[in-house]
Amino acid sequence: MAALDRPLIDLALRLAAAARPIARTYFRQPIPVDDKADKSPVTIADREIEQTLRRILAAERPKDGVIGEEFGADRPDADLAWVIDPIDGTKSFITGKPSFGTLIGLLCRGEPVLGIVFQPISDELWLGAKGHPTTLNGQEVRARAGRILEQAYLYSTAPEMFAEGDEADAFARLSRRVKCTRFGADCYAYGLLASGCIDLVCEADLKLHDYTALFPVIEGAGGKIADWTGAPPPFVAGKVPGRILAAGSAELFDEAKDILAI
Amino acid sequence: MAALDRPLIDLALRLAAAARPIARTYFRQPIPVDDKADKSPVTIADREIEQTLRRILAAERPKDGVIGEEFGADRPDADLAWVIDPIDGTKSFITGKPSFGTLIGLLCRGEPVLGIVFQPISDELWLGAKGHPTTLNGQEVRARAGRILEQAYLYSTAPEMFAEGDEADAFARLSRRVKCTRFGADCYAYGLLASGCIDLVCEADLKLHDYTALFPVIEGAGGKIADWTGAPPPFVAGKVPGRILAAGSAELFDEAKDILAI
Repeated sequence: MAALDRPLIDLALRLAAAARPIARTYFRQPIPVDDKADKSPVTIADREIEQTLRRILAAERPKDGVIGEEFGADRPDADLAWVIDPIDGTKSFITGKPSFGTLIGLLCRGEPVLGIVFQPISDELWLGAKGHPTTLNGQEVRARAGRILEQAYLYSTAPEMFAEGDEADAFARLSRRVKCTRFGADCYAYGLLASGCIDLVCEADLKLHDYTALFPVIEGAGGKIADWTGAPPPFVAGKVPGRILAAGSAELFDEAKDILAI
Repeated sequence: MAALDRPLIDLALRLAAAARPIARTYFRQPIPVDDKADKSPVTIADREIEQTLRRILAAERPKDGVIGEEFGADRPDADLAWVIDPIDGTKSFITGKPSFGTLIGLLCRGEPVLGIVFQPISDELWLGAKGHPTTLNGQEVRARAGRILEQAYLYSTAPEMFAEGDEADAFARLSRRVKCTRFGADCYAYGLLASGCIDLVCEADLKLHDYTALFPVIEGAGGKIADWTGAPPPFVAGKVPGRILAAGSAELFDEAKDILAI
């Protein structure tokens, strides 16, 4: 695939727009929170958003695959497969913090070709699409290069996402080397990286629906994103969770990657 | 002092309004970041906001004290003393994350009688004033009670605010007991507590300008805030940093306090 076709981009933007009123309706409302098998929380907002997006896709792109966090995979081997995380950062969502987002990714034969990181409360939408520069609300953005590790600002969602032992030790090594480490930004951190506000995001335990949308957003802003070894993670439903590293430049990525080596 | 006079509340709201355009002008702009003696960052935005607020206070309340993060204490022993943190969460501010805020407190003979937690990007303003219920953008809010520790959502700005050893161990004990711990909300966490979105905030290394404004906001919403032993922290300029605990109810405060005992 060369540059992604406009109709697919427009559809992705309509999916984000459909998520918006649902997220805003339930935000800071006293809704029940259920614990999933993996102990992560889920609410009616997660489910309604994913169901709504699946309905739109079933009507408009019935042959495409759909892989969602809450309702599994339909036709995951189709040439085009949509990857949906209805609310990335449900723990932020249920505690009233607007850093959560809706993630919409599109895989073309296993390659991420479109990604949206959308914050329904602040109305910030980062769009990455193959062959197009990444935009924030329609304005081109660019990751920042030229920072060495000692000047770098590193974000990560939470300390507990790293398994005790080698993984947590590797993150601690990286954290000690950078200028500043901050937690708690969820997918928002990748938007901030694409916009040149921070330099690194390092996370673990991410699943396909967490990371697919991030790749076109970061790459289209000139940044680098891969697993901690520098290889692409599996873009296949049902694989084990992965460790993801994103950086404003390939040079900074490599510096961080070497420190993270387990 | 009984209920706080409306003219003082109106002045505090005008101070917040004066901070707003300055914070928004410099947010996500490539401004220099200086390191202070304590290694915390400071920018032109911190300085301009505090200078602007001091100018307004000098014109309208020349006899009142002013204690600010960046420019020290003038007349701190006056009957009324304003306590200003121009940007609480400068690390969030310089990384493009809107959870930072402007804190405006008012001490009446050492007692906090007014507090504003203002988020200039999301335009959320929590106001607490003695004798008045706490409001968010003018709407009354209420902390939530009735949650036991095992159901509680705990926020804190960053793991590194706790000194290694007893302090960090105490926080880790509390964190293990609650339902969920999240980092990275800065002063926003106290607003979320006042609005009944979360149950606990536990922090350390907070200075007078960090915590003064929080007391009227939390207390006016029916919550409890004190140091980790349950005593009020010193409301005096230049004292050593303190450990602050806030809870949605006195019962939950006491549960957490017992676990934090060093």
